[in-house]
Amino acid sequence: MPGNTFGSFFKLTTFGESHGVAIGGIIDGCPAGIQLNLEAIQQELDRRRPGQSAIVTQRKEADEVIFLSGIFEGVTTGTPIAFEIKNQDAKSKDYSHIKDVYRPSHADFTYQKKYGHRDYRGGGRSSARETASRVVAGALAKQVLKNISFHAFTYSVGELSLKKTVEEIDFSLTEKSITRCPDPKLASKMEAYIKNVRKQGDTVGGVVACVIKNVPVGLGEPVFDKLHAELGKAMLSINAVKGFEIGSGFEGTKMLGSEHNDKIKKDETTNSNFSGGVQGGISNGMPIYFKVAFKPVATLMQDQKSIDIHQQEANVKGKGRHDPCVVPRAVPIVEAMAALVILDQLLLHQARKEFNL
Amino acid sequence: MPGNTFGSFFKLTTFGESHGVAIGGIIDGCPAGIQLNLEAIQQELDRRRPGQSAIVTQRKEADEVIFLSGIFEGVTTGTPIAFEIKNQDAKSKDYSHIKDVYRPSHADFTYQKKYGHRDYRGGGRSSARETASRVVAGALAKQVLKNISFHAFTYSVGELSLKKTVEEIDFSLTEKSITRCPDPKLASKMEAYIKNVRKQGDTVGGVVACVIKNVPVGLGEPVFDKLHAELGKAMLSINAVKGFEIGSGFEGTKMLGSEHNDKIKKDETTNSNFSGGVQGGISNGMPIYFKVAFKPVATLMQDQKSIDIHQQEANVKGKGRHDPCVVPRAVPIVEAMAALVILDQLLLHQARKEFNL
Amino acid sequence: MPGNTFGSFFKLTTFGESHGVAIGGIIDGCPAGIQLNLEAIQQELDRRRPGQSAIVTQRKEADEVIFLSGIFEGVTTGTPIAFEIKNQDAKSKDYSHIKDVYRPSHADFTYQKKYGHRDYRGGGRSSARETASRVVAGALAKQVLKNISFHAFTYSVGELSLKKTVEEIDFSLTEKSITRCPDPKLASKMEAYIKNVRKQGDTVGGVVACVIKNVPVGLGEPVFDKLHAELGKAMLSINAVKGFEIGSGFEGTKMLGSEHNDKIKKDETTNSNFSGGVQGGISNGMPIYFKVAFKPVATLMQDQKSIDIHQQEANVKGKGRHDPCVVPRAVPIVEAMAALVILDQLLLHQARKEFNL
Amino acid sequence: MPGNTFGSFFKLTTFGESHGVAIGGIIDGCPAGIQLNLEAIQQELDRRRPGQSAIVTQRKEADEVIFLSGIFEGVTTGTPIAFEIKNQDAKSKDYSHIKDVYRPSHADFTYQKKYGHRDYRGGGRSSARETASRVVAGALAKQVLKNISFHAFTYSVGELSLKKTVEEIDFSLTEKSITRCPDPKLASKMEAYIKNVRKQGDTVGGVVACVIKNVPVGLGEPVFDKLHAELGKAMLSINAVKGFEIGSGFEGTKMLGSEHNDKIKKDETTNSNFSGGVQGGISNGMPIYFKVAFKPVATLMQDQKSIDIHQQEANVKGKGRHDPCVVPRAVPIVEAMAALVILDQLLLHQARKEFNL
Repeated sequence: MPGNTFGSFFKLTTFGESHGVAIGGIIDGCPAGIQLNLEAIQQELDRRRPGQSAIVTQRKEADEVIFLSGIFEGVTTGTPIAFEIKNQDAKSKDYSHIKDVYRPSHADFTYQKKYGHRDYRGGGRSSARETASRVVAGALAKQVLKNISFHAFTYSVGELSLKKTVEEIDFSLTEKSITRCPDPKLASKMEAYIKNVRKQGDTVGGVVACVIKNVPVGLGEPVFDKLHAELGKAMLSINAVKGFEIGSGFEGTKMLGSEHNDKIKKDETTNSNFSGGVQGGISNGMPIYFKVAFKPVATLMQDQKSIDIHQQEANVKGKGRHDPCVVPRAVPIVEAMAALVILDQLLLHQARKEFNL
Repeated sequence: MPGNTFGSFFKLTTFGESHGVAIGGIIDGCPAGIQLNLEAIQQELDRRRPGQSAIVTQRKEADEVIFLSGIFEGVTTGTPIAFEIKNQDAKSKDYSHIKDVYRPSHADFTYQKKYGHRDYRGGGRSSARETASRVVAGALAKQVLKNISFHAFTYSVGELSLKKTVEEIDFSLTEKSITRCPDPKLASKMEAYIKNVRKQGDTVGGVVACVIKNVPVGLGEPVFDKLHAELGKAMLSINAVKGFEIGSGFEGTKMLGSEHNDKIKKDETTNSNFSGGVQGGISNGMPIYFKVAFKPVATLMQDQKSIDIHQQEANVKGKGRHDPCVVPRAVPIVEAMAALVILDQLLLHQARKEFNL
Repeated sequence: MPGNTFGSFFKLTTFGESHGVAIGGIIDGCPAGIQLNLEAIQQELDRRRPGQSAIVTQRKEADEVIFLSGIFEGVTTGTPIAFEIKNQDAKSKDYSHIKDVYRPSHADFTYQKKYGHRDYRGGGRSSARETASRVVAGALAKQVLKNISFHAFTYSVGELSLKKTVEEIDFSLTEKSITRCPDPKLASKMEAYIKNVRKQGDTVGGVVACVIKNVPVGLGEPVFDKLHAELGKAMLSINAVKGFEIGSGFEGTKMLGSEHNDKIKKDETTNSNFSGGVQGGISNGMPIYFKVAFKPVATLMQDQKSIDIHQQEANVKGKGRHDPCVVPRAVPIVEAMAALVILDQLLLHQARKEFNL
Repeated sequence: MPGNTFGSFFKLTTFGESHGVAIGGIIDGCPAGIQLNLEAIQQELDRRRPGQSAIVTQRKEADEVIFLSGIFEGVTTGTPIAFEIKNQDAKSKDYSHIKDVYRPSHADFTYQKKYGHRDYRGGGRSSARETASRVVAGALAKQVLKNISFHAFTYSVGELSLKKTVEEIDFSLTEKSITRCPDPKLASKMEAYIKNVRKQGDTVGGVVACVIKNVPVGLGEPVFDKLHAELGKAMLSINAVKGFEIGSGFEGTKMLGSEHNDKIKKDETTNSNFSGGVQGGISNGMPIYFKVAFKPVATLMQDQKSIDIHQQEANVKGKGRHDPCVVPRAVPIVEAMAALVILDQLLLHQARKEFNL
């Protein structure tokens, strides 16, 4: 309830500030007996890591995850799995100049007002660094969910937007580009555009889309914990996210019912998927498809006007090493949060399933 | 956790099927000592009622709310407030023809698969009738939140969309039109369009927007229970909702950071509000502004092809009394869910506030 | 969290004051497809009913339970099961004399201070009448848990205490006596004693013991939600309970480890059961055995000195119709709470079980 | 819900096995702005530490707590407080002999059956070593609860039992004896007795009592989360606990109502305290007084008969370094759990308090 725990059955609680000793978390509720591939978890974390390419922040963080409990002889024991990632490149000096200043469209002002006190170094707890812990837990969840696949990708950057349908996308291309857009031509344009934006000391937003395949029918808990409501909350909890839509989303509001209804075929699949794989809040076996809107990063390499904690005018200097566009690094975060939701819902569903004979 | 409870501190648990004895709920966690205006609660419910105008379903349900506990001499006692709304116009016969059939883009198929058994009369639990209970609880929450105002309105129906900014809208006009669009000219067009869609036995979607004013700074619990993540989940849990965006939303992804950042003025307000009143998951004192996408209603007055529970082809006949567009009746539901979120977060915040000296 | 919900997966939320319109509750999370025997539920409720014998309160409440949702054609649908029990014999006038007075060892004072306002009629929410809702939910839980049996019984009244071991008790005798003590001789003594205590306008306490048989191995969630911790909380939440012990309990503290350890036999049972069926917080397949201490009822048929809400001395008159000893009617309540705990834990355990291959 | 989290608002989630890398936890929901004395937290931990005296286990663990987040410049920031205690003296070899054997009255059998897999080294997660994390969180909670004092003490060891009333006890004597019994004469007898028991390779149980002073009126959430129900669950979740009673407890069941009722005086205190400071589940401002029963430690320095995981007879050898009586080291654990409950309830209560005008 105090906000640092996600999930009710496969539960992740995270901790840590961007410039503290470490970040990390505790996963509680992981089924016992799961053989883990710890290297694969580290690889997922590497997909999110700063400094991985020319279009992301050049901060250097090795971001090595260390497990402290819950795994014995490579296998989960059913007890809490704690992990930590030490903070290495925490140049606290970089932040002394913003100690008393509220950066525009950052959480400085709201944290100060809510808590009356904050760790001003690099955003502290409000830093997107926290999402590294989510990627660790999500990667672990993926291993529990062997047969379910998660395919997030860059759908748009600024005005540059994918024109393909979900069926036309070749997901094997996503990791081929540093933009994580699975359309090579568009990916090149995006890359050039992001570099140009950075040159101007500016930033730009974009959209990450995600397809989840092989989700069994029946996940999601009506009426308040509908599957897409849980996915929506999960995505909206990621830093910089301003919107979420499933299936036809906002565009679907312009359609007629006769166009929008997904007809059910004899094999129990549907011949269209405007619903995005969820009906009445419960998965229907079709691919789950949703989009997540990321605003442009608030930290600019330009000077900006603002105020300080004494309500005096202040200047925010363009300094530090930040992402010109958060979208490429957000792709593994979206997948991680999707995996956390699906596993949590699967366990919940399983609790009562056996009684339905 | 089984999905019929909303909120952690001001908690609403709802029950009831569209064609059972009654629907209703229990509100737990309401502060004691609140003088209630029960008539005002009934009035909110009337805003959602079927049969209220020419463009909604013509089902007749008096929808009278009765309180069973938790209120003594007109004042809340701090104990659970139970209420019920009897089902009156439950013409179960209307539904016998769909007993074994899965209606397209309805929850019939998923409920059948999840529970192995369902109340097929009119959607049972998956019916939007359940939202009446939310309106009761939301109306009560509004009375606790005296100084905070909730203004939901019809933003678009199909392609017909409001062109005004939030600041330009006169919220006193919302209830003047049966469409609940606060722009009289556009409202007339929407009304005509909806009538036309209905004549064709079809339905259409739309968008409800909502502005919340006077929310104190500091609500929302980082990192997973960010204020807009809670609002998003609340809205996505409403029947037929496919998308949620706050502030600049999906459009904002096309902007540059230098355009998008909300500059903070000396009085601690911002000179733009692309954030929609939330920074870092915490309210910043500016109006909270979000949009909710509703798909076209799945029940058509046209025959549709589908399958039955034996995986045989079946016909779904266009019958019954349904809404051609859910948006006008969704307006009070959006407000209700917003009020539940804000009150819940306010109570949570208050628990720790006093320690921040 | 606000205290009127029990369980995390099979969840009961109750409502209602002793002299309001009705009491009742919502059960959320009941598996679908369970064929219910509603008469058997009513029978359990009758075991708790006032006026059932000469040694309990002579209030007359029919206590008829009505189900409002979640059951279709006699079978659970997986949706919330709401129920209510109308209040009939609510002689509010009986309570006008205590409106402003704090009855000794009642909840009047604490409710007044906590909520600043209370329904003073007959204890309002603090009345043991609330436990009727628990009995309904517990009776339903028992039907889901077909193979598990719950045997609560009167272990002691005042100094009169059962001398038999658990193995020696014939549970079929429990309902043969209005005391619900399964030892006929002792039962007669208890009955006479309770009648005598009542004649003096006084009350007396006692102990209810409970044996649960056929609980599968593996229930309980270490480390905080140990099975006996959940049972303990459940029992301590019943009105008038002051103590809980499992297995050897307080007496076991005087034993040596070499006497107390339960030796495990080749068939995986143990040759003694000082643990009471739980080891490390997890059921071990042996009968679960625990005791619950009930204080003497606070309402006396004697005048007592106290104060009123203005801190002035006041007299509490001995009036009304109350139980001289709560223990006989507490027996079905203890069983009900035990069933709620076991079903909740079973569902939780089941969520992850399948993964343990 | 998976069992490793305690509290709903001031939440502690713990992790770690006795012979893994580390144990520790995350505290979520601590109010911001609390100036912490980290040394005092370490001192509490030292009260629980192995090897502290001649009558406890001689294992050597420095048990140094390290904080990883949530504290900035010595003050809590309102974000999660993570901490860890490295495992140092983890002689895993000591445990190889019990790898496949189920020790009598240990959790070996139940963990194996529940999880199908376990960390057999020294009890793994079921080891009482986990309680060190509770002491850290409890010590921190005590600092938030400045004005409330927690006085746990050894009430009995075997048959040796304190004869004083709560009012007669001088709590300043508790820490003067390694038994933590505040009666010097009795403490000496207990010490001698424990030493004698150990000489025989045996163990013995005992009772810890606890008095909490200055708890404000109004804590506890009826009806299921009564204050003493929460305390009971907290205590029963401690390793080796078999019973809990508040106020008059089991002895009180033998009293008449006319003896047991606590009369309320004009200053709103009561002239007796059989209720133990709680009425109707809510604190009444009197000292809260309860007792906790600890069974004799199951690990003996004697050979015992048992079975192994293949259901074959096996011998459990008396080896290792264990406590002959857990009670002296349990005293700070009882205080810690009590502090967690009181702070959690205080925060909950505070959330709604302001509305009660």
